[in-house]
Amino acid sequence: MRVLEISSFVAAPLGGLTLAQLGADVIRIDPVGGAADIGRWPLAPSGTSLYWTGLNKGKRSVTLDFRSAEGRQVVADLVAASGPDGGIVLTNAVGQDWLGYAQLARHRPDLIHLQIRGRHDGGAAVDYTVNAATGFPLITGPEGHAGPVNHVLPAWDVACGLYAAVGLLAAERHRRRTGEGRALALALEDVALAVAGHLGFLAEVQVTGADRPRIGNHLYGGFARDFATANGERVMLVALTGRHFSDLARVTGLAEIFAELERLLGADFSTEGDRYAYRELIASLLTPWFGQRTVADLAASFAGTSVLWARYRSFTDLATDPQLAANALMQEIDQPGVGCLLAPGSPIRQPGVGAVAPAPVLGGDTAEVLTGLLGMSREAVAALGDRGIAGESR
Amino acid sequence: MRVLEISSFVAAPLGGLTLAQLGADVIRIDPVGGAADIGRWPLAPSGTSLYWTGLNKGKRSVTLDFRSAEGRQVVADLVAASGPDGGIVLTNAVGQDWLGYAQLARHRPDLIHLQIRGRHDGGAAVDYTVNAATGFPLITGPEGHAGPVNHVLPAWDVACGLYAAVGLLAAERHRRRTGEGRALALALEDVALAVAGHLGFLAEVQVTGADRPRIGNHLYGGFARDFATANGERVMLVALTGRHFSDLARVTGLAEIFAELERLLGADFSTEGDRYAYRELIASLLTPWFGQRTVADLAASFAGTSVLWARYRSFTDLATDPQLAANALMQEIDQPGVGCLLAPGSPIRQPGVGAVAPAPVLGGDTAEVLTGLLGMSREAVAALGDRGIAGESR
Repeated sequence: MRVLEISSFVAAPLGGLTLAQLGADVIRIDPVGGAADIGRWPLAPSGTSLYWTGLNKGKRSVTLDFRSAEGRQVVADLVAASGPDGGIVLTNAVGQDWLGYAQLARHRPDLIHLQIRGRHDGGAAVDYTVNAATGFPLITGPEGHAGPVNHVLPAWDVACGLYAAVGLLAAERHRRRTGEGRALALALEDVALAVAGHLGFLAEVQVTGADRPRIGNHLYGGFARDFATANGERVMLVALTGRHFSDLARVTGLAEIFAELERLLGADFSTEGDRYAYRELIASLLTPWFGQRTVADLAASFAGTSVLWARYRSFTDLATDPQLAANALMQEIDQPGVGCLLAPGSPIRQPGVGAVAPAPVLGGDTAEVLTGLLGMSREAVAALGDRGIAGESR
Repeated sequence: MRVLEISSFVAAPLGGLTLAQLGADVIRIDPVGGAADIGRWPLAPSGTSLYWTGLNKGKRSVTLDFRSAEGRQVVADLVAASGPDGGIVLTNAVGQDWLGYAQLARHRPDLIHLQIRGRHDGGAAVDYTVNAATGFPLITGPEGHAGPVNHVLPAWDVACGLYAAVGLLAAERHRRRTGEGRALALALEDVALAVAGHLGFLAEVQVTGADRPRIGNHLYGGFARDFATANGERVMLVALTGRHFSDLARVTGLAEIFAELERLLGADFSTEGDRYAYRELIASLLTPWFGQRTVADLAASFAGTSVLWARYRSFTDLATDPQLAANALMQEIDQPGVGCLLAPGSPIRQPGVGAVAPAPVLGGDTAEVLTGLLGMSREAVAALGDRGIAGESR
């Protein structure tokens, strides 16, 4: 499968990355000098964007002058010439007719074209505005906090990029069966609405007429919360099922107290509803137990039980944990502009998947792609480069 | 494409839902009485789970006694008999050999089997423990806050479910080309590590040796933040690019002041690095401007500009906005146990996709699936039901 990606920021590049790490030939085509995300933070000391290189691993990079008719024609030629497994375009460009389905399908009738938009009506939106409009920031964060709490993980961008990969694979399956291409539209706002709907958030307000309260680090409708430990760390504890909770009660020596409280209150802590209703009571009994134990004590106490827990870690804790390097997901790559570092492949593990490939140098594959796919001579590519139509490696 | 889903909670059900809403025949097989997620909150007044129904829209539901050899044999028979587009199993069951690839592939050599796990080594983990271990909660939330801030959106579960859909589609493509099945493993923890890596979080600490600070609702490496309005609401404002920022400066009448400050400070607010470095200064100048304007004023001021902004809304605001019902993504469905409500289809928009289908009644398709796929007689299915091997509709 060959995908031509004209993209920037997270969603579209993550869609292409997801396919590239499963073996697709993904060619990211940028304007000469790079798109708006070329310098996005975080940066390496060299100034190379760790964000751009992270999201473009294993792709090839072509740069072209998007403002010139000649540069645009090369994009159309690449769409036409990308082979029987090609003719697949992934883009988040909006309002640029030359990159739209209608124009490009003239060169490739079985074109598969997925356009990521902010809003379905074509309006602009980004992860941070979509998140504000979707309800989560007002129920995230400490219980007494006034005002919204934004997420740091751009979760809608991530979901949108993965939906894009799904959409392209499904459309390619349809094309193999019918010969027909497809114009797909995927709006970031729709992704957020769909996920909020699928998880019951939209149904809840429609059915109950009431907003869910802000409950800090508690889990809605169950028992899960963070606790401080003896050594000043914090752990997250999750008792999703009755078995989790009974194991927790046994390990903490609170089984008898919980049973007596259930009797006195007419409650049943084996049901998630009652564990949720009495969450503060349950937590208040657990707090001293956790406060008297170190993380190592907890590991010993919970070993062999069903209790789910984890220590809160910083990214530094995570990156320096020997378990990270031992995880086959992570491989050392030599990233141009950055150096050697551990980088993840696809979390979809399957036999026979090769090494994690670094991101290309911006424009570094222009000559190879134009000669390989379009049959241009090296001289013709160089002439395009001299006139600023095609980018040089840098 | 026909998928047999033996699942619970979010990730695996969302993977199946994603395929079902694109037209796949997804058959969720549960133990009689339902899996651990059958009563997960939020609930409708009837007690029906809005979470379960939200995540199982458009699937068929079969219930079988998973503890009996006979019930397990029916699952294996369904894998074997699910047709040329079948032989695809999606599960988050761990440690149950009878549901593993090795056992089921004996009945279907070209089996595609995707198992979602907590950790790749088979250890247990859920979204909330994975999130704690991955660094985000310690940099989320108000700047002065001590301790972690959990997310409310189970973002890792969502990403994991979408990766599962990608993995199944890619494996089915491989099978179509080679005839070979595949055993795929997808760990929730790996999903979080991969996404944190792809977005540069892991590279950042490896390369700089320092953790990113907690910066409240600011956007790292750019200018974006929330502001209070005249009518007591809050809006999110995003200036990702130089154009966004110059439009913002012009609309707010601050262009001259910003220019003078750039001169005095030796800064360049057209670069995202300087917009980030001087974020508090920039925000302090914008705060009174926002504070003097209502949301309606802001809409008028920003119309026709590139400035990205959105009002923070509650889920009630969102669900009662007429724009939601006007969005073709959302359709009114009549959900058994819940009633009529607006529910989302797939955000991947394509021509010819039909109506949003509600979730099935638990076990409601058992007879249809067993007669249809296994060729059993209605009497034989009823006999299985009488003996508790197959579930009844309820």
